[in-house]
Amino acid sequence: METAAIRVEDRDTPDRAAFADWLSSTNDITRAFLAAGQIPGLINVAGGLPDPATYPADAIADIAAKAIRDYPAETLGYGPIEGLPDLRTIIAERYSTAKMTLSNRNVLITTSGMQGLDLIGKVLLNKGDVVAGQFPTYLGALDAWRPRQATFRNMDLTSADCDPPAAMQDAKFAYTVPNYSNPTGRLVGADMRRRMLAAARLTGAWLIEDDPYGSLNYDGPQIPSILEMAMQGGTTGPVVYMGTMSKLISPGLRVGWVIAAPEMIEALTLAKQGSDLCTSGITQRIACDILQSGMIEARQPVVATHYRNRRDALCAAMSDHLSDWFDWEVPAGGMFVWATARDPRIDTDRLFSIGLAEMVCFAPGSVFDAHGADRRSMRLNFTLNAEDKLVEAVRRIALTVERFLKEAI
Amino acid sequence: METAAIRVEDRDTPDRAAFADWLSSTNDITRAFLAAGQIPGLINVAGGLPDPATYPADAIADIAAKAIRDYPAETLGYGPIEGLPDLRTIIAERYSTAKMTLSNRNVLITTSGMQGLDLIGKVLLNKGDVVAGQFPTYLGALDAWRPRQATFRNMDLTSADCDPPAAMQDAKFAYTVPNYSNPTGRLVGADMRRRMLAAARLTGAWLIEDDPYGSLNYDGPQIPSILEMAMQGGTTGPVVYMGTMSKLISPGLRVGWVIAAPEMIEALTLAKQGSDLCTSGITQRIACDILQSGMIEARQPVVATHYRNRRDALCAAMSDHLSDWFDWEVPAGGMFVWATARDPRIDTDRLFSIGLAEMVCFAPGSVFDAHGADRRSMRLNFTLNAEDKLVEAVRRIALTVERFLKEAI
Repeated sequence: METAAIRVEDRDTPDRAAFADWLSSTNDITRAFLAAGQIPGLINVAGGLPDPATYPADAIADIAAKAIRDYPAETLGYGPIEGLPDLRTIIAERYSTAKMTLSNRNVLITTSGMQGLDLIGKVLLNKGDVVAGQFPTYLGALDAWRPRQATFRNMDLTSADCDPPAAMQDAKFAYTVPNYSNPTGRLVGADMRRRMLAAARLTGAWLIEDDPYGSLNYDGPQIPSILEMAMQGGTTGPVVYMGTMSKLISPGLRVGWVIAAPEMIEALTLAKQGSDLCTSGITQRIACDILQSGMIEARQPVVATHYRNRRDALCAAMSDHLSDWFDWEVPAGGMFVWATARDPRIDTDRLFSIGLAEMVCFAPGSVFDAHGADRRSMRLNFTLNAEDKLVEAVRRIALTVERFLKEAI
Repeated sequence: METAAIRVEDRDTPDRAAFADWLSSTNDITRAFLAAGQIPGLINVAGGLPDPATYPADAIADIAAKAIRDYPAETLGYGPIEGLPDLRTIIAERYSTAKMTLSNRNVLITTSGMQGLDLIGKVLLNKGDVVAGQFPTYLGALDAWRPRQATFRNMDLTSADCDPPAAMQDAKFAYTVPNYSNPTGRLVGADMRRRMLAAARLTGAWLIEDDPYGSLNYDGPQIPSILEMAMQGGTTGPVVYMGTMSKLISPGLRVGWVIAAPEMIEALTLAKQGSDLCTSGITQRIACDILQSGMIEARQPVVATHYRNRRDALCAAMSDHLSDWFDWEVPAGGMFVWATARDPRIDTDRLFSIGLAEMVCFAPGSVFDAHGADRRSMRLNFTLNAEDKLVEAVRRIALTVERFLKEAI
């Protein structure tokens, strides 16, 4: 994708001090997606957005007002860097198992899951350090770690050749989204999870388990988290687990959490101190009340049914219109279908541009690869748009492919 | 101050990958202050906290509920990285002058003023780059830039010897809190502001003007911001201005803003993309409604009177109890009195520890100096505690000094 061009204007001198080196290596594809979302009539299946209709707005409005009235100092003041004690306690309890009871010292509240990734980069990465990343991977994670100038080593957990100890050798950490990964929607199986944990123990690499999609399970098996596997041994060990309220309840809260060994939580807390000092007491108290109220458990089946129907509509339309050119697996959870071109002439970066003219926007595979090499795949989101829109999006993508094959080759 | 000791425990292997280098150079003094705040009976004049009684909780509770009901998608969804357009527009209008109209392209919403500092570090600093910082300076700014491994060059803006062009030569940026600076409470005069702006134009350094305390003016003169001075020429030029809702309304919102040239806003936006993706729509919408409602203008004189009385109580008690050993200026605004020992035997790092035993906690001068060299000064906050508590705090500090002089020397 295009490298971000920072326009130089409003300058009173031609030689203002330069931006940091990493900025020349970043991309602004996320902003391109968001901007595309503003074009009237365009159908955007590129982003990873929940359906706004799923936000329990009235309930959250009531919770917010009550939280601010009942806890004015806690919601409106500066809070502890690590997060509100009540919220940390609830999270610690939710993730405790028969084998290990977690305490507040294992929990850091973050301003969104993305901040967790940023803090991980800050506390672990020196320039040039190696990150072994599940490939293809969440582009936000790459964004978060670019300012640290890390080196990315791809790790394809779905390949039979994947050798976790080799991938993690000399890496500061490994990064995985085992549940319905962004972008592929795939579930990492129990055996590979165990192998990753063993490899982290063997190599000394930390193991970042990012789990935004675990609650969006439509018809997949329940596989223990890597955190839970580690806790069988009575310790979180190398696992740094990240959770969020964004996918099932509301991303507008910007509330996430990290669960890890106290030494890691302490380091992350020092990094958070210099990042935003503390997460908003208002949104933390709302999150606390949501977790206490049972809203998560009540909403999970409702949201899951809603998104399962949309997934089915998207995949049916893909079978009708795209099966000549693409392969995909129907994901058992999450937000995305990952389609890879069987037709070797297809270049999804070029399809992306033509698609905008056909009024459809998807995410090209290259943005999920630190090296930008995958130009055969695309990611389609099925949570934001209603069924009829998804069918129309697929129809437009099919037109895009036809136009590409006719014009561009 | 003590370097952060990260305890190593819950380890399953003795050689887990090491933390990033900068962590060994950081300090956990902010956490020490916050922890001290939890000791029953201790009077904490160390922090920089507003009086919770000033938070307009009922009004914000109503605003929050209405904001979520009226704007469910905007408050509960992902928003633009740069911030809600309505909020950016209000900020742009508030800072526009007769000489220059600002647009949304000049405004980035940040998750607190602290995040603005973090983003500045990300977009400008490579390892070893020079920051010319107003000295003594806000320790949060030092915290924010430590992960970038910058080199700090002190710049004493109150000294007649201060030479801004020399200080800014080859610096990526200069950092100043010109209004009632943290920690000294001093106001940087119009002439020095002009000299800094000229020096930034001459050297090419960016000029970070951090203004959390401008609204807390008790009896000081109104001096134009450096941003306003730059805008006389029809451009924001080298100035990167930072504002916040934290001091006058509520830090719990964690809403701040940056005003700068569009090229800088674009770079900061890329950095924000990888930091937390966007600021909470809930807190942004609340901020928007607060700014539109006139609440700021209505509350400013009320809060200013409240804090002026506390400042006067603190300074009167200091005159009664500390004038044998310390000098200070009565600040015309802000949150702090900065006292410097005239008595050369006094070491405020050691006083800090003894003070905790006397049940009083102040901020020792060493934490406001990148090189930790100032052990003669202390910062006393007068906004958090009521008048009687402030008088008692000063009495305890006097006892601390007496005990120190008797025992420690």
